[in-house]
Amino acid sequence: MPLTRHVRWLCAALLLCANANASEQPRNIIYFIGDGMGPAYTTAYRYFLAGAPGNPMPRTVFDRLTVGSASTYPDDDTFVTDSAAAATALATGTKTYNGAIGQDRNKQPLHSLLAEAKQRGMRTGLVVTSQITHATPASFVAHADSRRDYEHISPQYLQQFGTESAPLLDLMLGGGQRYFPMTEGGLGQRMVDKGYHYVDTLADLDQLTTLPALGLFADKGLPHAIDSDTPNRLSLMLERALALLAPEPPSDWHSRIQSWWQPEPGFFLMVEGSQIDWCGHGNDIACAMAEMDDFAKAIEVAEVFAQRHGDTLVVITADHSTGGLTLGRDGRYQWLPNRVAEVRHSLDWLMKQLQTDPRPISAIWRDFAYFTPDPDDLAHWESLRAQPEVLYPLLVDAISARSYTGWTTVGHTAVDVAVMAIGPSAEQFVGHHDNTELADLLRQLLPL
Amino acid sequence: MPLTRHVRWLCAALLLCANANASEQPRNIIYFIGDGMGPAYTTAYRYFLAGAPGNPMPRTVFDRLTVGSASTYPDDDTFVTDSAAAATALATGTKTYNGAIGQDRNKQPLHSLLAEAKQRGMRTGLVVTSQITHATPASFVAHADSRRDYEHISPQYLQQFGTESAPLLDLMLGGGQRYFPMTEGGLGQRMVDKGYHYVDTLADLDQLTTLPALGLFADKGLPHAIDSDTPNRLSLMLERALALLAPEPPSDWHSRIQSWWQPEPGFFLMVEGSQIDWCGHGNDIACAMAEMDDFAKAIEVAEVFAQRHGDTLVVITADHSTGGLTLGRDGRYQWLPNRVAEVRHSLDWLMKQLQTDPRPISAIWRDFAYFTPDPDDLAHWESLRAQPEVLYPLLVDAISARSYTGWTTVGHTAVDVAVMAIGPSAEQFVGHHDNTELADLLRQLLPL
Repeated sequence: MPLTRHVRWLCAALLLCANANASEQPRNIIYFIGDGMGPAYTTAYRYFLAGAPGNPMPRTVFDRLTVGSASTYPDDDTFVTDSAAAATALATGTKTYNGAIGQDRNKQPLHSLLAEAKQRGMRTGLVVTSQITHATPASFVAHADSRRDYEHISPQYLQQFGTESAPLLDLMLGGGQRYFPMTEGGLGQRMVDKGYHYVDTLADLDQLTTLPALGLFADKGLPHAIDSDTPNRLSLMLERALALLAPEPPSDWHSRIQSWWQPEPGFFLMVEGSQIDWCGHGNDIACAMAEMDDFAKAIEVAEVFAQRHGDTLVVITADHSTGGLTLGRDGRYQWLPNRVAEVRHSLDWLMKQLQTDPRPISAIWRDFAYFTPDPDDLAHWESLRAQPEVLYPLLVDAISARSYTGWTTVGHTAVDVAVMAIGPSAEQFVGHHDNTELADLLRQLLPL
Repeated sequence: MPLTRHVRWLCAALLLCANANASEQPRNIIYFIGDGMGPAYTTAYRYFLAGAPGNPMPRTVFDRLTVGSASTYPDDDTFVTDSAAAATALATGTKTYNGAIGQDRNKQPLHSLLAEAKQRGMRTGLVVTSQITHATPASFVAHADSRRDYEHISPQYLQQFGTESAPLLDLMLGGGQRYFPMTEGGLGQRMVDKGYHYVDTLADLDQLTTLPALGLFADKGLPHAIDSDTPNRLSLMLERALALLAPEPPSDWHSRIQSWWQPEPGFFLMVEGSQIDWCGHGNDIACAMAEMDDFAKAIEVAEVFAQRHGDTLVVITADHSTGGLTLGRDGRYQWLPNRVAEVRHSLDWLMKQLQTDPRPISAIWRDFAYFTPDPDDLAHWESLRAQPEVLYPLLVDAISARSYTGWTTVGHTAVDVAVMAIGPSAEQFVGHHDNTELADLLRQLLPL
């Protein structure tokens, strides 16, 4: 049938064009890391969005962009990575021991994708919800024997680069004011002296209009999304970051011709959903779902940006899974996200209230959740207010058991994580990769 | 640079050919279902193969063929599927309630991929390690309100099809002799009367030389791989199945021309790693790893077949995850597969020995594992031999705790599962799909 054949050749030719385009070198790279976001988290988020069973099933941004999976094991005897070793692998392409920041098992410094991007003339940025010096962002910037050595890590954020003394980092948005004091001679003040524009509240984000820019919005990490006035803080920060890193050129002809003749440099931006992991460590499912929502909305911002600018590659993965989260437990074939949605604050918030709010727990609980626990449980918890370490696991179980949410650890697990991608050369991320291979692929895709 | 441009066009043209080929309709389809094989199982299997940390990391068949993930939620109020609802979705493209076999929520029968394949003139087969009438294979063949209704399910395996009274199933290999008695008028005898060639031991597999063929190798399910003389039973059965479904034509010219002129029909084969799930229900990690190994080796047989015959599409997925398996627990950042490998039998085997073997548990244990438990533990377990329901969880914990293996349930969980594919049109399975969409894609790929 010659007609069918012609149609097939036409389709093939179209595919060719699509492929030729898709295999191109990206100009910009946005690298998302969902800290602790194992496969149970992306699954849970879908059902959490659906609400009750029987509702229409959403297709989340994770579903839309999934292309494969990644292994996360570190270079020691554990198979279970921490965030430092995993971030070092994702940032440099080299495995290391748990706790290491940007250096290998022999404590030799490793060259990160971000440093490489800067070397190639790209703009660079970090957008996170933890302190900006936390393990994941630090592995893109610093070299340290231990992630806990903040005194050694923080000053490395002031690195300058090359003969022109350009700052390594054009943009930093996140938490961690305590590590960058704005006092005389303090790290923060030294950054301002070097030309960084600085704001310290999310409300002032729009005042950052030129690079280099520094926004630190909390003493350490930002408040949990579920407890925050701005639960979509990561997408807010990302929108500002994109406006700064890839400014729209003026639309007059002269500017257009100039931007064509002398294009703006591309950018490399790492964006971390830092606190998915923190909620996972706390075995706090409601807290984790709010962080997932913030992270998903930020990826949606990048998805739209990538669709509008055909030259931006977005890659999303996780460093590991946290908490041994499972959806279903104790022999029950059910998970109830609508009961998760009844919780209005994090367990951290509740514990803090129980320490500081003189009201009885029954009154505090009404601010915490839309359901009323058994009076005996409330009385028992009231009696334990002075023993938070005993009380906390009971509260975890109160939330988890009624939604059939399972946990096996307050640490991490070894399960493979998902990989998502969109943009030029996204097809190279299809399939299963080791976390180091993701970095290797990205390094090859950095503009020459 | 015109040369670079020419090279790019040449690459693009080659890509075009590759794509044109890859998008072709397959002639044969092999559909693997790892029952209960959630992402923690494929991860665990990689590290189990590696043995101790620091060894070279293998790239498993799952790693090689991964293309995406699938959601598994059923059509009821649970989000957590059972094997019947999941297999019905994978077999028919329609979601249903937990327990349903090949019918929808209104109890209307659904047309399976296997029945559709037969309707289109393909050969059909099932290869499983459970009884052949168990939920997963049954959903490709039968229609029943409940997976437990074996009396209603089994006779449907004798269905004939179309005006020529061809059997729906050309090939069945697995367990379940009890459902197909070889007595006068028994279902098994009726199948033999209809022309099925029958064997009842794996040693006689090679005696099956023509279709239709029936091999039932156990009263119900086959013995667990870890307890079996033939732990690679699934690949043995699959090799025989492929020899029967796609016989090599004689190499003389006449036969070659004839097979070109009048080709053999293609086949649709469902292969289930049935007992990954069973070991998961038992929270028995050593048992599960042996089942994973059997399943992986069977997929490798299909991988080689697909590479040799360019016309065979192989798709691999799971119906759900079982047991809430996690690699790491109790705050420990470690998983120790080398300690899993010290276990030589399933916990089912151990429990049975404890009921039937008069020796003390310390003696039996030496046949069970290569490590010696604490004497106090052994004494405690000895005292509980008459209370298996109390003893079993203690033994689970003895194995799981020392390898840092976590479990949250004896049932299933909702986490998304992996999807792997190789062969013509494998690229259509890239990304995230619902389990029903996998069936829809396969239906579109069945030859007209």
